[in-house]
Amino acid sequence: MTDLADKILAGDRRSLARGITMVESARADHRAQATALLDRLAGAGRQALRIGLSGTPGVGKSTFIESFGMMLTAQGLRVAVLAVDPSSARSGGSILGDKTRMERLSRDPNAFIRPSPSQAHLGGVARRTREAVALCEAAGFDVVLIETVGVGQSETLVAEMTDLFILLMAPAGGDELQGVKRGIMEMADMILVNKADGDLKPAAMRTVADYAGALRLLRKRAQDPEGFPKALPVSALEEQGLIKAWDEMKMLADWRREHGHFTSRRAAQARHWFETEVREGLLARLHNDPAIRGRMGDLGAAVAAGEVAPAAAATEMLRLLGAAGPE
Amino acid sequence: MTDLADKILAGDRRSLARGITMVESARADHRAQATALLDRLAGAGRQALRIGLSGTPGVGKSTFIESFGMMLTAQGLRVAVLAVDPSSARSGGSILGDKTRMERLSRDPNAFIRPSPSQAHLGGVARRTREAVALCEAAGFDVVLIETVGVGQSETLVAEMTDLFILLMAPAGGDELQGVKRGIMEMADMILVNKADGDLKPAAMRTVADYAGALRLLRKRAQDPEGFPKALPVSALEEQGLIKAWDEMKMLADWRREHGHFTSRRAAQARHWFETEVREGLLARLHNDPAIRGRMGDLGAAVAAGEVAPAAAATEMLRLLGAAGPE
Repeated sequence: MTDLADKILAGDRRSLARGITMVESARADHRAQATALLDRLAGAGRQALRIGLSGTPGVGKSTFIESFGMMLTAQGLRVAVLAVDPSSARSGGSILGDKTRMERLSRDPNAFIRPSPSQAHLGGVARRTREAVALCEAAGFDVVLIETVGVGQSETLVAEMTDLFILLMAPAGGDELQGVKRGIMEMADMILVNKADGDLKPAAMRTVADYAGALRLLRKRAQDPEGFPKALPVSALEEQGLIKAWDEMKMLADWRREHGHFTSRRAAQARHWFETEVREGLLARLHNDPAIRGRMGDLGAAVAAGEVAPAAAATEMLRLLGAAGPE
Repeated sequence: MTDLADKILAGDRRSLARGITMVESARADHRAQATALLDRLAGAGRQALRIGLSGTPGVGKSTFIESFGMMLTAQGLRVAVLAVDPSSARSGGSILGDKTRMERLSRDPNAFIRPSPSQAHLGGVARRTREAVALCEAAGFDVVLIETVGVGQSETLVAEMTDLFILLMAPAGGDELQGVKRGIMEMADMILVNKADGDLKPAAMRTVADYAGALRLLRKRAQDPEGFPKALPVSALEEQGLIKAWDEMKMLADWRREHGHFTSRRAAQARHWFETEVREGLLARLHNDPAIRGRMGDLGAAVAAGEVAPAAAATEMLRLLGAAGPE
């Protein structure tokens, strides 16, 4: 374990991949090893800029990540790319698919790409991704990009584990603007309108203006400096606007660091994840312990058959679990 | 307790109200009494037809409940009206407000109206409503109507505690049809288009045809007989279409009873509520036990300060709670 930790701290990508495989494992002994590894690495105190990136299929997310990532490594920065994809278990494939989707970036020695684990349980995916972020930080990456598809609760999860949350959009007519869920707009620290190139450029510029207006109406938060959240045009294909977008991200992060928002956001996130893990650990007893699982099944059957009232059965089960009743 | 149970079984409305107040109480001693009361009453084996009713503000829900309820009592049936309103804690008022909203029905000796409890926690509201339903059934009501406003998850909760789920809609242009969330349409066993009177009658009839078409496209379930789910016009104001709607509801319920779907739905619901209560009871330990709450707060602060990693703190907390780690 110390050996693996040292290699991760030295930035060895193969060891990092092994560490992530360990945190992704459902086996109890792996879990114990993963907790020990994370505890050991936490002492290093390394911090990356964690950027969440959301965008529905078709906005050019892979191309953007590749171009954005290459721009970062060209600046001498090391970048890791992770994915949260709750749907991957169903579709059978990860959103990062094979690395051929980001061929250039995957061959860059200063980049590390990890496909999303195929896990059905969103909570489990969340914990593993969070822990993978911690491993990437320990391995000395400067930027950790966490990609998610624009579905359901995955945006909230990603926003809860990142410093900046970026929404990647496609050019659209003004009337399509309402298609973005308000809640996701409110989470966004920045909106990037991709495909600001060729025929689509005029539409992209209009879309930027539309979103800029919508963002101003929607949100002015204490943790934002004047002028944020911003909407900006980019072209992942022509590699345009990427440096500008990155400069704005850095400016926002620096401003938040100076004003204490950066640290307080991380503190709140850490506390949130601690509480979530405690809750999930408590509930895991219902599934992990065969005796408890069996009794739960028997009582459930008795309740379904109308032999016991739900409340009475729950009281009995909770007594068995050593817990008092609800409220 | 036996005294209260007997009075509820005798159909005494004041005792029923006292019983509901007991299940709504957050006090531990009241909770124990409520569980005992429910257990005692479950033996009576009485069953009402539980009807969930959802509709956004403005569709005339109060007027409908009053007219529909009066029609039922005119048929010699006893009807109870409950409400699930997760927003009432915020707005400070219940959706049933004072009973003046249903003045005639509230004075009917065969009707019982109970405003929703003002509780912030949706899970708590759900349990209390479910238990209030059980009390109303024990008190010999034939129909229990559970009203909810068309927001968020309250429809799902109501559908999970009722035999039939009815959606009340207002007349609309065909292009407004998409405004109903697909998930809610899929839950509906019947759509009633209200205000099929006066100037709005043609629009109401068109809306009925639109929804009938949409329902046919959306859903054909094994637990529905031929021709269901249906969309029907009603006028709560002119008391038109109510008997027809009631007859269709009875037909659907009878068909499901004959084919075993009625009982299997109730069995699945009871098991679901049992499992929910066990989960909530387990999590309640984090709040109820002062020592555990204190340690949770201390560890949370240490995690926020970066002194302990979330996973390590969670492991310690779970050891204290006598639970193994997650997964």
